[in-house]
Amino acid sequence: MSDITRVALDAMGGDNAPAEIVKGAVAAVKKQKGIKIYLTGKEDVLKKELSAYTYPEEMIEIVPATEVIETAEPPVMAIRKKKDSSIVVAMNLVKQGKADAFVSAGSSGAVLVGGQVLVGRIKGVERPPLAPLIPTEKGVSLLIDCGANVDARPSHLVQFARMGSIYMESVLGRKNPTVGIVNIGAEEEKGNALVKETFPLLKECKDINFVGSVEARDIPSGNVDVIVCEAFAGNVILKLYEGLGATLIKKIKKGLMSSLRSKIGALLIKPALKATLKDFDASQYGGAPLLGLKGLVVKTHGNATANEVCNSIVQCVTFKEQRINEKIQEAVQSQEEKKES
Amino acid sequence: MSDITRVALDAMGGDNAPAEIVKGAVAAVKKQKGIKIYLTGKEDVLKKELSAYTYPEEMIEIVPATEVIETAEPPVMAIRKKKDSSIVVAMNLVKQGKADAFVSAGSSGAVLVGGQVLVGRIKGVERPPLAPLIPTEKGVSLLIDCGANVDARPSHLVQFARMGSIYMESVLGRKNPTVGIVNIGAEEEKGNALVKETFPLLKECKDINFVGSVEARDIPSGNVDVIVCEAFAGNVILKLYEGLGATLIKKIKKGLMSSLRSKIGALLIKPALKATLKDFDASQYGGAPLLGLKGLVVKTHGNATANEVCNSIVQCVTFKEQRINEKIQEAVQSQEEKKES
Repeated sequence: MSDITRVALDAMGGDNAPAEIVKGAVAAVKKQKGIKIYLTGKEDVLKKELSAYTYPEEMIEIVPATEVIETAEPPVMAIRKKKDSSIVVAMNLVKQGKADAFVSAGSSGAVLVGGQVLVGRIKGVERPPLAPLIPTEKGVSLLIDCGANVDARPSHLVQFARMGSIYMESVLGRKNPTVGIVNIGAEEEKGNALVKETFPLLKECKDINFVGSVEARDIPSGNVDVIVCEAFAGNVILKLYEGLGATLIKKIKKGLMSSLRSKIGALLIKPALKATLKDFDASQYGGAPLLGLKGLVVKTHGNATANEVCNSIVQCVTFKEQRINEKIQEAVQSQEEKKES
Repeated sequence: MSDITRVALDAMGGDNAPAEIVKGAVAAVKKQKGIKIYLTGKEDVLKKELSAYTYPEEMIEIVPATEVIETAEPPVMAIRKKKDSSIVVAMNLVKQGKADAFVSAGSSGAVLVGGQVLVGRIKGVERPPLAPLIPTEKGVSLLIDCGANVDARPSHLVQFARMGSIYMESVLGRKNPTVGIVNIGAEEEKGNALVKETFPLLKECKDINFVGSVEARDIPSGNVDVIVCEAFAGNVILKLYEGLGATLIKKIKKGLMSSLRSKIGALLIKPALKATLKDFDASQYGGAPLLGLKGLVVKTHGNATANEVCNSIVQCVTFKEQRINEKIQEAVQSQEEKKES
């Protein structure tokens, strides 16, 4: 295994592409040695963007791609038709073994479809979940799955729990991470059909530190490391996290401007408030990995700026060093063998 | 129809019963004329609690009930066995037409089961949804359903939309309220099987002002009056709203205590911050109605204090005056007739 982590970066995806993506790439290679970035996208545009920076030039290489997949495009069709798009070209680099990881702020749908169709699933993985880190009182928890594949089966959720545990242990260093399932009550008999079927399966798994149900109210407390749920619920949780945080902060800021007294107070609390809110800013944790694929696929926020892009790239190094995919493969195969015996 | 709104109040349910419940009852009859309260629970205990207050005594009457249903008890069994519990006695008052409304801070499960078994559904209503108001940037939206009956069918969601619209128009005075369905993307083809099936049904309803999908991120903005979802998702949204709000506020307060500078600032902003956060405090909006039953059933928070209990009782007056149940019955029957013709 090479010591260099090679990242194929979709330079054309996201609201702030290509400027912030390129800026993030430059920041990453300057921040950490051992990262080689393949920037995919329109050659002339990217050359111009790069020319504004000084950086170790051998660590960033442009791989031309003439097309761009837009967010609104139906993803299956887009991946099939736009063979020279920045996403497809970058994913093919992973498929061909020329890159270890793929990072994009572009169309979530296209990244999910491309991940499965082009990069491909690890043998035995039924469905690759999108697993972002969400901020909590204690740090972060992994929310798995927030992807576009809804209506999961119990066996999917069990694999999510297993893959999520490996990720939290290897990447975040949480020893024997706790796993909870999102539910509408603490008792085992509560829940919808999917949760009721999954609960006993998780209890049986000796390789998963399952602690039972997590009510949505308790997610922000951070008492559970890996929060397992079906993608529809996961998407609701992730998006509400973002939306509610933004609304509360907006309301507080508005409230602070309501009187002279509070305006003066606002000036005094600004640094403390800023530090507090930064803890709750999802972007500092980088992108969300799509776990269970034959390479690392990372989806960052559509509105990602250079800082988040840089963090997402740097995150790929730990992922590779910690051999996450090998560990997932071993865990899944060992389960398969148990089933067969 | 009598001008008096008669409320059967479960005086033994909730974390702060009976003290806060009784205090809330007294506050309600003092705040608004035309409310008669039947307090159900242990007679000696309630007599003692009431003796601390002066109030129009003919407006509060104790109806003895010797048993209490605990939150952890399996609800179906509890409702069946504990016939002399404060919940069952109070619900029977509604069933017998002696009370117009039922209010409880006790076991959600028992209230939901009792509502269906004892009070009974309006003819044609397939499933009674629990519909709390949630705070938004613009005021409040109705989140329907947050109850315990999960795995809903599309026809249920359509009825939720209809009942929620009637409630928002009649109780909150929103003309032609907008209705959205919780989804993981804005497009019609997005979503799980339930949402995909429900979407075209809602589009067809001429009596519903359906505006399409609502992503969880946009719920706090308050752009949609009635937010329709299946109870599992609704429960996740409601609980996360409460949990995330509490966590953010705790973090901000902690942040403000981090330096002398911010401590001084905190003193100055306190009134403004308090007013802002009050807007986002769900308890001031009273309890959540369980819609579609033959009487009004209101569930308040388990940790409700006198203020929320009082608001929940007062809310019953509007519900009765606005003839919500008659309107729901008319709407449901008119749909039934359309189906038959």
